Amino acid sequence: MTKKYDDALALIKRGVDEILIEKDLEERLHSGKTLRVKAGFDPTAPDIHLGHTVLLNKLKVFQDLGHEIIFLIGDFTGMIGDPTGKNITRQPLTREQVDQNAKTYKEQVFKILDPKKTKIMFNSEWLGRKSAADLIEIAGKYTVARMLERDDFYKRFSTNQPIAIHEFLYPLLQGYDSVELKADIELGGTDQKFNLLMGRELQKHYGQKPQVVITMPLLEGLDGDKKMSKSLDNYIGINELPESMFGKIMSISDELMWRYFELLSFESTAQIQQWKKEILNPRDIKIKLAQEIVTRFHDKKSAETALENFTSRFQKHQLPENIAEIKITLTAPHIALANLLKETGLAVSVSEARRLIQGGGVKINGEKITDINFAVKPNTSDTYQVGKLKIAKIVVVAD
Amino acid sequence: MTKKYDDALALIKRGVDEILIEKDLEERLHSGKTLRVKAGFDPTAPDIHLGHTVLLNKLKVFQDLGHEIIFLIGDFTGMIGDPTGKNITRQPLTREQVDQNAKTYKEQVFKILDPKKTKIMFNSEWLGRKSAADLIEIAGKYTVARMLERDDFYKRFSTNQPIAIHEFLYPLLQGYDSVELKADIELGGTDQKFNLLMGRELQKHYGQKPQVVITMPLLEGLDGDKKMSKSLDNYIGINELPESMFGKIMSISDELMWRYFELLSFESTAQIQQWKKEILNPRDIKIKLAQEIVTRFHDKKSAETALENFTSRFQKHQLPENIAEIKITLTAPHIALANLLKETGLAVSVSEARRLIQGGGVKINGEKITDINFAVKPNTSDTYQVGKLKIAKIVVVAD
Repeated sequence: MTKKYDDALALIKRGVDEILIEKDLEERLHSGKTLRVKAGFDPTAPDIHLGHTVLLNKLKVFQDLGHEIIFLIGDFTGMIGDPTGKNITRQPLTREQVDQNAKTYKEQVFKILDPKKTKIMFNSEWLGRKSAADLIEIAGKYTVARMLERDDFYKRFSTNQPIAIHEFLYPLLQGYDSVELKADIELGGTDQKFNLLMGRELQKHYGQKPQVVITMPLLEGLDGDKKMSKSLDNYIGINELPESMFGKIMSISDELMWRYFELLSFESTAQIQQWKKEILNPRDIKIKLAQEIVTRFHDKKSAETALENFTSRFQKHQLPENIAEIKITLTAPHIALANLLKETGLAVSVSEARRLIQGGGVKINGEKITDINFAVKPNTSDTYQVGKLKIAKIVVVAD
Repeated sequence: MTKKYDDALALIKRGVDEILIEKDLEERLHSGKTLRVKAGFDPTAPDIHLGHTVLLNKLKVFQDLGHEIIFLIGDFTGMIGDPTGKNITRQPLTREQVDQNAKTYKEQVFKILDPKKTKIMFNSEWLGRKSAADLIEIAGKYTVARMLERDDFYKRFSTNQPIAIHEFLYPLLQGYDSVELKADIELGGTDQKFNLLMGRELQKHYGQKPQVVITMPLLEGLDGDKKMSKSLDNYIGINELPESMFGKIMSISDELMWRYFELLSFESTAQIQQWKKEILNPRDIKIKLAQEIVTRFHDKKSAETALENFTSRFQKHQLPENIAEIKITLTAPHIALANLLKETGLAVSVSEARRLIQGGGVKINGEKITDINFAVKPNTSDTYQVGKLKIAKIVVVAD
C-alpha cells in the first residue's frame, strides 16, 4: 500500500465502531474511483447536536478525500406518518414541512460539509413512484425470522409488545435506497447496524456489489455516561450560543475530553498524541477543543470572546453580567439547600447537590457553603453558584 | 322470524363448518337488502373437482335467494409470481394467462352458478392501482404476532422454516379486497378461516361493518378419509366423462354417500331424511346421487346412459366394450397375483390386493380367485376384474 492510501484508511478508521467489510473498503479505496457514500437522515424537524456530528465529521473525511457524499433525507416514510393510527404525535409530514426541514438541515450540516460537494436527496423521489407490487417484490427478499433478529423487534416480540407489519417494511425500504443509489459505502450509528446491513442484502439480491457498512459510536453526553441526547439534557446543540457551548465543553471530565477529541476534533491523531505526552494542564487542552468547536459552528472571533469571558468569570472569580433569576415558592418554613438546588435545576439530584456542597462547590453570594444541613428561608434573594458553570439568582418567596 | 327467513337460514346453514357471526347473518338477511357475497379464487389454471363445488353450491344458495355473488379472481398476486425467486414453478402469470384461466373458470363454474347473476371480478383492478405507500398503510393495520397465529405461519416459524416477508402482505391484501368490495359475506374453505377473518379486521379499520364469514368443510375424497384432491387421486373432476363420474360415485361407502348428499346435492334435507328413514338399498340411493351429479355437469341423457352402462356391466356381470390393456414384463419366472395387481395399478398396495382376493373381489376371465398365493406366469393375456370398478386386460411377457 502507498502512504496515501494508508493515510486515507487511518483517517477513515479513526473513532469508528465497525467496518464491514474492511477488505472491501480497502479494495474500493484502491480502485481510485469516486465512491458514493450514503448516510440517511430523519425528515422530522432537525435540531442537531454534537452527537450527530460524529457521523457528519466522518462524511467530511470522505468528502475531503474526494468522494461523493449523499445526504439522504428519508422523507418517504415520514410523509406516511403512523398507519396504525395509534401514535397521534406522528402525523404525516407534508411536502412543505419536509422541504422546510431540509432547509434547516442544510443550514446546520453545511457548517461541516461542503455544500458544493454534498448531494442532498430525498428517497420519496424513487419510493414515491413504487407500486404495491414493487414493494411486495422487495419484501420477498427477506424473511420474518431474520427481521425479528433486529434487537428492538426481538425485544418487543419476546415481551408481547405489538409490532405492526409495516414496521418490517421500513428497514427494507431503507436498504432498497442503497440499491437505488448504488451506494459504495453507508455510514450510520451503531444502532443502525441492522438497517445498514439490509442495504448489503438487498444490493446482493439486485445484482450489485454490497456496500461497505461503517458504524460510528454514539457519542457520550456531557455526563460522560449516557449517549448525548436532547431528552437527557446532556447535549451541546450546534446552534447553541458560543458562551454556552464553550462553558459546557469546559465542564466535561478529562477522560471525556480525549474521547471528544477523537470523535469531534479535526486535529490530527499525531497532534493529540503529542498533547497527551506533554502532560499539559487538562484545562488548557480543553480550551483548545472548546475553541475548535465554537469556531466550527460560529467563528474564530466568537471563540476568542467566549474564552475571554470564561477566563474572566471563573479564573478571576468574577460573576458574569447577566444572571438568570429563578423564583421558587415555599410552602414549608424553610428548605434544605440541597433540595433547593435540585428544585431549581442547579443540581440534577439531591444527592448530587449534597456532594457538591460537601466538596465546596456551592457558593451563596460568593460565600462557600459546606454545611449540608444549611437551610434557606423565604423572602430571600441571593446569587447561587454551583460548580464552575451554573449560576443563578434564586428568589425564595413564602406561599 | 317468518318462515321465509327460517327456510333461507336453514338452506344457508346446511353443511357449513362455521358462521361468524350468526346473529349478524340473521340481521342482514332480515334487512331485506341484496347482500354482496364474496368468494375468492386462485388465478392459476383451474381444474375444478367436486371438492371445489361445495363452496360453489353454497354460492348458488345465496344466488337463488336473490343475493349478489362476486366471484373474485385473485390475479394481482398471481401476476407477481414468487418474489423470493426460489419457486421457479411459480412464474408470474401474464394478463393473457389470467384471462384464459378466467375463461376456463367460467366454463366450469357456470355449470352451477347463473352466469347472468354472477359478477366475475379481478382484484388487480384495484390492487394494481395501489402505491407502495398505500400498501404500507394497509400493513399498519395488523401485527406480526397476530399474523404468526395463522396455523401454517406458526408451524413454519416454530420449526425455523423461512417465511418471506411478502407472505405477510398477501392475507392483508385478500382482506382488503373485502373492504374494496364492501362485502357483506365471505365464503371459503375451513383452511381459509384466518384470511376470511382478516377481511373483518380490515373492514373495521376502514369504518365498515365487518363481513359475515362462512366456512365450508373440505370435502372428503373417494377414500372417505383424506380431503379430495388431484394429487391424492381421490377426486371426481367436473369435466370427467359421465361413465367415470357415475362409476366413481357408485364406488363410495354408504357413509360417504350421505356426506356427499349433504354437501353436493340440491335435494332437500327433508327428502334426504325421508330416504334415510325408508331404508332403501343404498345402491339405489347412490344411483340418485350419481344421476344428479352427472346431470349437473353433463345432461340428463348422459346420466341415463351412464346408469344403463353401469347396470349392464356390473349388475348383469357383463364386461364393458372397451377394456384397457396393460403390458407388464416379468424378470422372475412368475409373480404373485397380489403383486401383479399392485404393479398394474389395479390395487393401491399389495396388502389391499390380498384383502380383495381373500374377500372374493378379484376375477380372472370372470372366474373368482380367492387363493392369495395364486401366481401368474409370463406369456399370458387375461382379463382381470378388481372390485366393481376396475377392469383391465393384462398382458404378461417374459423379460
